[in-house]
Formats: sequence, structure tokens, C-alpha cells
Amino acid sequence: MIETSLIGFSRGEETGSFFHAVNPVTRENLDARYGCSSESEVERACELAHSAAQPLASLPGSEKAKFLRSVADRIDAAVEELVSNMTLETALPEARVRGETGRTSGQLRMFAKLLDEGSWVDARIDRAIPDREPLPKPDLRAMLRPVGPVAVFCASNFPLAFSVAGGDTASALAAGCPVIVKAHHAHPGTALIVGKLMVEAVREHGLPEGTFSLIFGGGRTIGQAIVKNPRLKAVGFTGSRKGGRALFDLASNRAEPIPVFAEMSSINPLFLMPELEEERMEEIAQGLFTSATMGVGQFCTNPGIVFYPNNEIGAVFRSSFVEKMKTFGSASMLHKGICDSYISGITQLSKQVGVEELFQSEVHHDGSSVVGTCVLNTDVESFLSNPALSDEVFGPATLLVSFSNTDELLKVAQGMEGQLTASLFGTEESLSKNENILDILETKVGRILFNQFPTGVEVCPSIIHGGPYPATTDSRSTSVGTGAILRFARPVCYQGFPDDLLPFELRDRNPLKINRTES
Amino acid sequence: MIETSLIGFSRGEETGSFFHAVNPVTRENLDARYGCSSESEVERACELAHSAAQPLASLPGSEKAKFLRSVADRIDAAVEELVSNMTLETALPEARVRGETGRTSGQLRMFAKLLDEGSWVDARIDRAIPDREPLPKPDLRAMLRPVGPVAVFCASNFPLAFSVAGGDTASALAAGCPVIVKAHHAHPGTALIVGKLMVEAVREHGLPEGTFSLIFGGGRTIGQAIVKNPRLKAVGFTGSRKGGRALFDLASNRAEPIPVFAEMSSINPLFLMPELEEERMEEIAQGLFTSATMGVGQFCTNPGIVFYPNNEIGAVFRSSFVEKMKTFGSASMLHKGICDSYISGITQLSKQVGVEELFQSEVHHDGSSVVGTCVLNTDVESFLSNPALSDEVFGPATLLVSFSNTDELLKVAQGMEGQLTASLFGTEESLSKNENILDILETKVGRILFNQFPTGVEVCPSIIHGGPYPATTDSRSTSVGTGAILRFARPVCYQGFPDDLLPFELRDRNPLKINRTES
Repeated sequence: MIETSLIGFSRGEETGSFFHAVNPVTRENLDARYGCSSESEVERACELAHSAAQPLASLPGSEKAKFLRSVADRIDAAVEELVSNMTLETALPEARVRGETGRTSGQLRMFAKLLDEGSWVDARIDRAIPDREPLPKPDLRAMLRPVGPVAVFCASNFPLAFSVAGGDTASALAAGCPVIVKAHHAHPGTALIVGKLMVEAVREHGLPEGTFSLIFGGGRTIGQAIVKNPRLKAVGFTGSRKGGRALFDLASNRAEPIPVFAEMSSINPLFLMPELEEERMEEIAQGLFTSATMGVGQFCTNPGIVFYPNNEIGAVFRSSFVEKMKTFGSASMLHKGICDSYISGITQLSKQVGVEELFQSEVHHDGSSVVGTCVLNTDVESFLSNPALSDEVFGPATLLVSFSNTDELLKVAQGMEGQLTASLFGTEESLSKNENILDILETKVGRILFNQFPTGVEVCPSIIHGGPYPATTDSRSTSVGTGAILRFARPVCYQGFPDDLLPFELRDRNPLKINRTES
Repeated sequence: MIETSLIGFSRGEETGSFFHAVNPVTRENLDARYGCSSESEVERACELAHSAAQPLASLPGSEKAKFLRSVADRIDAAVEELVSNMTLETALPEARVRGETGRTSGQLRMFAKLLDEGSWVDARIDRAIPDREPLPKPDLRAMLRPVGPVAVFCASNFPLAFSVAGGDTASALAAGCPVIVKAHHAHPGTALIVGKLMVEAVREHGLPEGTFSLIFGGGRTIGQAIVKNPRLKAVGFTGSRKGGRALFDLASNRAEPIPVFAEMSSINPLFLMPELEEERMEEIAQGLFTSATMGVGQFCTNPGIVFYPNNEIGAVFRSSFVEKMKTFGSASMLHKGICDSYISGITQLSKQVGVEELFQSEVHHDGSSVVGTCVLNTDVESFLSNPALSDEVFGPATLLVSFSNTDELLKVAQGMEGQLTASLFGTEESLSKNENILDILETKVGRILFNQFPTGVEVCPSIIHGGPYPATTDSRSTSVGTGAILRFARPVCYQGFPDDLLPFELRDRNPLKINRTES
């Protein structure tokens, strides 16, 4: 049997082209086959989404909230099915699948809460002043409205939380946008489970058929067809720099360019200030080890580079960290592509001038995607003279970079590309003395941490999971937290409208009791 | 003498390449010559702006507010000088220059007020929950911070309000971004007056030299050099669709793509509902006449297309409007380029199948940029079958399009490109009966008006001067009103920070007393 795409309420045709999911540990095909959609099916999904856009845009926030909660409940209820499928497809451990299931339903409920509260629409009201001189002031009211159909590309490293019903989809639906999801080839079974739940919820809530579609497709053609379709108005993506940039270029070159919110690559530097106490080195090395190996290093916020002082405490940190990394053993990465990139990444990196290999696991990965850790070492001079040392290596590898003084750190920060995060470790005094580095980092990253590790992204209103290019293609956005909804909304102003014809959010007596800017 | 660019606190070199402003009425060169900057001067301005970015980003809102008010005061004080220069360069009447001067200083003061109030930064606070299970919740706080140096391109049609110290510059400076302004070739003298005031204010307030530069350049090379410079992080532009798209493409193709907020083209359709009372036709025709000829039709919100019912009241409206347009006489457009485009635009439009010329002024424009009005007529069928009828003609020309029923209007609305505005004229009942058209228009425009005309854009928190492509290159933005500041700011999250090292906006005791989202 071949499982095909979900095009609204119907299933895709069998086109003769299909693919298997693969067990990354054994590299054997799993049983189920997934049929690739044709371009005409993509076209149909886009037309359905277009037809759904207006009805969805007209839904009150409370109705969208009910729908999101019902999706969340269904996902929670499907956890056992998710565990059995997703562990096979991704080699992620059961605990991770359970955790990510909770994170995914939690995100949906967070947006439901945001919608119930309602103030996110940034309602602004300027009342008329008919007798103003020299000209009367008209009545003007503005609020955020949905941008229209959104394409979401599933992330390889978060089969649930950044995939079918993940943050991009949840925030787009919350904004009132229909969503077309392109499944990731590495976990189509997981995608289908969640996609079917989504369709069930769409039906049960009487939402229009085009509210949601899930597309299977091999290669790049189908993803490109989605982004090029004129019905689509925005794109959410989490993945590689190359992939994100390709979609961005495609979307920017359309007759009508559309925004692409691609979260792409980040080496998430850690800076250990020279004044750190020696007794903290053990704790920092342990924290870094946990952070760098969590999920086999396959997190966007994995700390790939650590700047440490070229002094005694630095040496303590380095040897302690290397010892811990040696204890990791081995684990399977998510799929062959990621594994191959990891192996070639550490091979390239270790060859660079001035880079010394402190540890490389001897795990034999031929015929599977099982890998071990890697720790490389260099100094700031080599680092600054060779841009290749700033390339992201996705996986459990860490590059340690020793520095001699904080001026060198400033140079590093100034020359750094955009990042999701940067983490400073030190005393409050050392940070006060070096506020310059804070000022620079602020222009380079979406989130700055003090004495904390960047993995384990908290889902809440204040989180920013974003940053200047190449961390993302839009530094003004976040893909995690309530702020993610703002990517899929645009302001509309109503001038001179009778109260009855205004959206409830803008009516005179504020029937929804939301926060508004009134002047 | 040749007037050269303002590169921070110094003047540009004479490169041998210069241009004159031109009196559009006589098409004679005005006396002053303006020296074009070299690419190395652009480079210098960008380096200065880069150096200014951090000090500016660190300024408290109250200091930025003082600076903006001081620029506003200087501009008000220079009104006589502006009148004498700008009327010559643009043929705009004195009253318009005085009005636009007030609008410009008013915009600066509006942003100053926004900064003094301070809540625009969207401060969000999630306090730590150290004993949360299974994992402690860290302390996370986020707010908007400046994106970095911004390039602003002066608009030909607003030499003050959308130029050197206009809305783009004011909002970028308010956000804390240094600004590099590219002067428009049609009003360099006006630009220089305002530019010098800006530099004076920068000096007086002790702001860094790179806070502001004003670049003169002929052709496109210099504008392109600014947008391509890696120090620049965003672009504001008001002008033609071709020009805006070219900058957008350039910026999107950079190694580090940057956002371009280009406000480009809009035909600002008016829809007269069939149920309108005959006695309102005279008033509507008069309002349209005023709106369509204001500033010689050279407003972005000029209503270029009017859909009117093919019935008796429609005929009353049409003949009344044509009679009024005949009374306009003549006036000079802003410059030869705009004039030539206007003449070729109405020539092209009148040639299209199904288009009838109801009136075309016989003003002889050879040797000057003086033009008269034009009214063309067609029906929905012809309109829908020929995309050329939707092309913007910038100037005092109006295309009337008769329709037979509201289904035709729905088709028109559905097929419409993105617009800055759409205006509905009718009774409240007629609008209630046709809410569909509202729902469609909402997805197509930035501002919907009811029984009002789109020109005369109110500057206030609720205004949206933006819209889907090709009205702008970013439908999620506005270039007028307080919301314009959001184009030049990006969120940054601080995790686990000691209170003393947080920006004041995020400190525990809320010392600035701003509105914050706390959870």
C-alpha cells in the first residue's frame, strides 16, 4: 500500500513515484511507502487553501482557539502511536518523542491562550475629531489580519515541534492562515499521523477543507512548486542554510515576492570570560557536555564553538570537557544526509591549519547513521584568519578556541555572522567590565544568555528563536513563542467605518475587552 | 560652486561629476550644482554609520526624543528657506511647502512622543521559576532593538515628508538606527537644507558622526552601492514600482539579504455601490475631483480607478465628475520624468480596446512639465480582459469603469493586485449586504475607507500606509504612522541576566513605567 498526500479532505493520487522512510540505525527501508504528489496536486492544495483563506480570516479568535486545543488533545492522545513510529524513523529515544509530543501540544495550547486573550492583534484606535482645524480628523482603526495561505516545511530535527503541527503551523493557523505542509522525507509516517489528526480536527470544527494539506514529495521539485504558487503568501522553514536560502531566493524572485521565515544555521558561540573561578569549570564543562550532545547535537541551538581563556582555568575547562565528551559513546543521527554532513564537517574542520583534534570518537558509522563525539581545538588567531572555522557542523562536535585577552573576544564578536544565540559565562563584575561585548553580541544574535546554555528553548512570550542572517532570513522574527504569530499577520486600517461593520476587536465598546492603543 | 554630499560631519569631494536641479515649469537648470559622490564616499558614509550604530543603540529613548524634536524645530524654523527653494525645484505651491514642512516636523515630534512614552519596544518578561518540574524555567526578557544602519531613498513627490528627514528617516532614527539618505535628483537643494539641519542637530546633541549622511548621485550606481554595502541592514524607499523592485532584487541577492520597505504603486480603486442616492453624486464627484487632482495627482493614494454603477445615478456621477475635471486648467508636475510618464501613460491607456476618452486637457506641455487632467471610461468586461487597464498612471488622470451588478465588483476585487487603499461609497445597508467585497478587499489593501477619499493620509498610530505587493514589497509594514518604527527594529531576548545589566525597559522594577507583557 502507498500512503499519499492529504489534499484537504481527500488523498492524493498514486503517481508511480514514491519513497520509503529509512531506519537510520540500520539504513534499511521501513515498510510503508509514501507517494509523491504531482504538481497538479500541489496546485489543487493551493487552490483549496486560497478558498479557505477568507472563511478562516473571519473566524473569531475563540473559535480558532478551540480548534487548536482540539488538535493538541488529539496529538496528546496519539502519543503511543507517535512513539512507535517516530523512534523507528528517527532513532530518537522514546523519552524525547514523549517530550516533543508535549511540547507540540503545549505550543498549540499557548497559541489558543493567546487567541482567547486576544490582544495580540495590536488594535489601534484613533477616533474622529470632526471639528479639528484646518482639516477634520477621520476615524481610523487598525489591527493585524492574516497574510493568507502559508507553506510550512517540516524540520528534520524536530519531527513534531517544528513539523506538521509544530510552531510554524500553529502560529500560522492562530493568525488565521490556511497551511500547506511539506513533509520531511525522513519522517513521513510521523507526519502522516499528525496530518490525519489535523484533518480530523478541521472536519470536526467545520473549518473549510483547504485549512490544511500535507504534501509528500521527493527531491526539491514539489517544495519549489509550493513556494512558487501565487496563492501562497508566506513560507516557514527550519533546516539547512542552503535549503533555506534556496527557498528565500525562489520566493524573492516571484512576480509577487513573499516573505520566507527560514531558520537556518547557527554555531551558538559560548564565551568563557577570563575571570571565571576555577571551581566553576567542572560545572561549566558538564553543562556544555549535556548541551552539546543533547539530541546527538542535532539542535539549532547546539553550542558549536566555545571561546575559552588561554590560562590555567581554561586548561582545566578544556581537559574536563574532553574527558566528558569521551564518555558519550555513540548514538544514531536522524538520517543519512545529516550523518554524512556531520562526518564530512568534522573531517574538513580537523584539516584546517591551526586546528588540533583533542578527541574524535572511533565509532564505525559505515552502513548506519551512528556517530560519536568530536572535540577540536584552535586559537583566536587561526579562527579569525579562516572563515571555514565558523561553518556550522550539525552534530555532537565542539570547536574550542583559546583567547589571550578580551580584545580578541571583541574582534571575534565583531566579525561573527548572525546567530540564534550567544552565551556569556562569567561573574557579574566581569560582564560589567566588558559591556562592549554585550553591545556587539546584541547586534548579532536573537538571544543572549548569561551563565546558561542555549539548548532547551523555552516556549513562552519572551523567547526569541531567531537572529540576523544566516541564523534566519528575517532578523525581525521569531519562530518560537507567541511572537511567532506576527510573521503571518499584516496590519489593515479601517477608515470612517460604521461600528457594526468593524471587526469586533475595533468596535467602540471593546466587546472582546482586549488591550488597545487608543488616542 | 558645487554642493557636495554630507558624509557625516564633512563634505564630499568634487568628483567632476555633477547635476543641476531643474525648474519643472521652464525646464531650465537652476543655478546650484550638486556633486555626485563616488563609491568610496558611499563606503565612508557606511563605515561611519556602522560606527554610530552601537552608540545610537545605547541611547535612552528620551535622548533620541530630544534629538528628533530639535530636528523638528530646526525644520519649522527653516520654512521660508524651504518655500523659496522647494517651489522652484518642484513647482509645488507655497501652501503645500508650508503644509509639508509642518507634516514633516509633526512626524518627528510624533516619534519623539512615542519614544518618551516608551512602550513601543514590546517588552516581554517571563520570570524564572527555579522549582518548576521537570525542568526549572529560566528568566527570559525580550524587547525590540535597532536593526542597524538604514538607507533611505527620497521620494520625488514628497520632498520633505518622505525625504531627508521624512517618515523613513524619522522612524529609523527613532528605532536607534543611523541613516544614510540618497537625495532625489529633482530636489537636491531642498534635501541639502534639511540635511544640513540634521547634521547641526547631530553635532549639537553630541551624537556620533555617522548618525546621518546625505548622498548626492546621478543615475543608479550610487543608490545601488548604498544598498549593496554590507554595513547597511535595511532600506526605505518611496517611488516607482520599477525602482522599488530593482532595489528589492538587489537587497535580496546580497550575501546577507536585507529587508527593503519599498512603497511603490497603487491605483487606489473607488467602488460606488449601486444603491447610492442620486443626491450624493454631486458631493462624491466633487470629492473625487479634489482627491484626484490634489498635488496634480502626484500622491501615492491618488484614486486612479473608479467603479461606478451602469445606471442612472452612475451617469449623473460620471457627467458631473467630467465637468469638474474640465475646470482644473493646468499645473506643472514635479519633474520631466514624471511628466513624460504621465503623458505616455494616458496615451497608452486611451488606446486600449474598450476605453473611451471622456475628456483630455489640451494643455500644451512641450518644453515644460505643465499638464492638465484626463478622464477615461470603460466597462468591467474590458477592464477584466486587459491587465494594462490596471497600470498606475501617476498624475491627474482617472479611469472610470462601469459595472452592472455587484458580482462583477467581486470579480474585480478578487483579480486586483495589492493596493495601498480601496474606498467604498454606499449606504451602511449596502455594505452590510455586500460584506464579501469587504472580506476580499481586506486581503488586497492596507487601508479600507468607507465614504471617504484616500488622499490626505492622516499621520497617527492607527494609519496603515502599506499593502500587499506591488503596493509595497512588505505587506506587514506601514511607512506612515507610529507603526513605521517597527520596520527598523528586531527583537532580542536576554536569558538569565542580572537586573543591572538588562536594558532599563526590562528591569524588574520597570523604571521607565512602560507597558509590558509579563507572565
